[in-house]
Amino acid sequence: MIIDRLYEAVESKGHVCVGLDTDLSYIPEFLLKKHTNISDVIFEFNKTIVDSTADYASCFKVQIAYYEAYGLEGLLAYKKTLDYLREKKEIIIADIKRGDISKTAEMYAKGHFEGDFESDFITLSPYMGLDSIEPYLDYVKNKEKGLFVLVRTSNEGAKDIQFIDTAEGEKIYTTVGKKIQTLGENYLGKCGYSSIGGVVGCTHADEGREMRKTHDKTFFLIPGYGAQGGGADDVAPLLRDGNGGVVNSSRGILLAYKKADGKPEEFGAYAREEAKKMKEAIGNVI
Amino acid sequence: MIIDRLYEAVESKGHVCVGLDTDLSYIPEFLLKKHTNISDVIFEFNKTIVDSTADYASCFKVQIAYYEAYGLEGLLAYKKTLDYLREKKEIIIADIKRGDISKTAEMYAKGHFEGDFESDFITLSPYMGLDSIEPYLDYVKNKEKGLFVLVRTSNEGAKDIQFIDTAEGEKIYTTVGKKIQTLGENYLGKCGYSSIGGVVGCTHADEGREMRKTHDKTFFLIPGYGAQGGGADDVAPLLRDGNGGVVNSSRGILLAYKKADGKPEEFGAYAREEAKKMKEAIGNVI
Repeated sequence: MIIDRLYEAVESKGHVCVGLDTDLSYIPEFLLKKHTNISDVIFEFNKTIVDSTADYASCFKVQIAYYEAYGLEGLLAYKKTLDYLREKKEIIIADIKRGDISKTAEMYAKGHFEGDFESDFITLSPYMGLDSIEPYLDYVKNKEKGLFVLVRTSNEGAKDIQFIDTAEGEKIYTTVGKKIQTLGENYLGKCGYSSIGGVVGCTHADEGREMRKTHDKTFFLIPGYGAQGGGADDVAPLLRDGNGGVVNSSRGILLAYKKADGKPEEFGAYAREEAKKMKEAIGNVI
Repeated sequence: MIIDRLYEAVESKGHVCVGLDTDLSYIPEFLLKKHTNISDVIFEFNKTIVDSTADYASCFKVQIAYYEAYGLEGLLAYKKTLDYLREKKEIIIADIKRGDISKTAEMYAKGHFEGDFESDFITLSPYMGLDSIEPYLDYVKNKEKGLFVLVRTSNEGAKDIQFIDTAEGEKIYTTVGKKIQTLGENYLGKCGYSSIGGVVGCTHADEGREMRKTHDKTFFLIPGYGAQGGGADDVAPLLRDGNGGVVNSSRGILLAYKKADGKPEEFGAYAREEAKKMKEAIGNVI
């Protein structure tokens, strides 16, 4: 089960998930000038970030939107980045948030668990229902692949659907979370967590503790650290016994050199320092 | 407003939306042998389908999953297909069902409303909330682009989230539909419909009539015709005054030559015949 690999990576390297949401505007001038095509620019930036942060990162999350934005060139950079991560034996979470059914979902599974865009975990959106998740289950069961399904995000708009009260007296995200946990129980790793995890944003501490308690077999992918406002204290309640989740930071790490007003040539070193600080900050509160 | 273009296309050509969900297994042997790379095979198949059915189709829906499945080669076929549709001035619905927030959604907007993968309409999934739709609104308002947001799908799993009863006494999909209609009222075309439409599957007749009544300004993209079980009688209640929605058929049209046990070389003619039949079947019941 892939979740055991991720669990072990967290044990040895900590909770940090480095988000490669690489926009061209994040890339230092000198690199932009060095190459004539976008895919080389983005790939070299990503490669440096990966090399610099790997000691402090249990996994890397690649947000495909940033690559789709640049069309075929962007997706070539996406492929090269995934290839490099696989070569380095890093764990890849492809943040694709797909959500579709039957044959269409089978095609997404093929697209993101095989071939050019092969990753270890993908994120999924559950709006269409559990049959939008089924087509991926064969990969989870037999091919060392995993899923993170959107449960409760921390954006303002989460209230529009996820926070609606149901007639049963719970929030929609609670209902979704329960369904994911129940489904996930069929795909447990030796570590006790399921290869079907949940995306759960930084929350209030009480709510986080409640989520962690009720979703005792669900591993969490936690976005929203750093640039999006969450800190170590916010994520701590979602973790457990020094494991149970990974915490993503993208801009906080990629743009550390700008924030520090540092030399652009040393963006890798700044990213490394930021990843280390984040790892320690989380380590200190759990 | 782009919705006026779609409205006019329905007026002149009818409700059929041809779905280019082109799997390699749908493509006749002779075409597979003709080319050495996947992108040429898929593109030639699509081109023939487009040329053959354009007289009876108000728009074309391209399901990106089928192209992502084949990696960069597949996405090259996707780009070539969109380029060709644009060259022929056909209306393109990119069925991408993306759903993410802020900067990530901006990147998806850039990716699918500009550049290599430019389309006229895209589909979106609303699970993260209305702020996952906002980043697209500038394109809707100022750049002749449109959206179809998932409201009520007709798959079995729709019951898992969309059909949950809320404490307010309505289904989740009703709540979502209302939000979409309210948001859409700021983007009305001259035709009276909004450039923010809804994806609504074939339903029971009563429910369809209710949806049409309560969503009086929402144009519907209706999947599920043909291969997925819906017929003209099922879609009729969702339409209005000979307009108000487009009805997608993919496999029913792409695979018409197999169903008819026809000559594979004539797959275009069979597709044309099927599109014509579908147009007439819908025309007869509205």
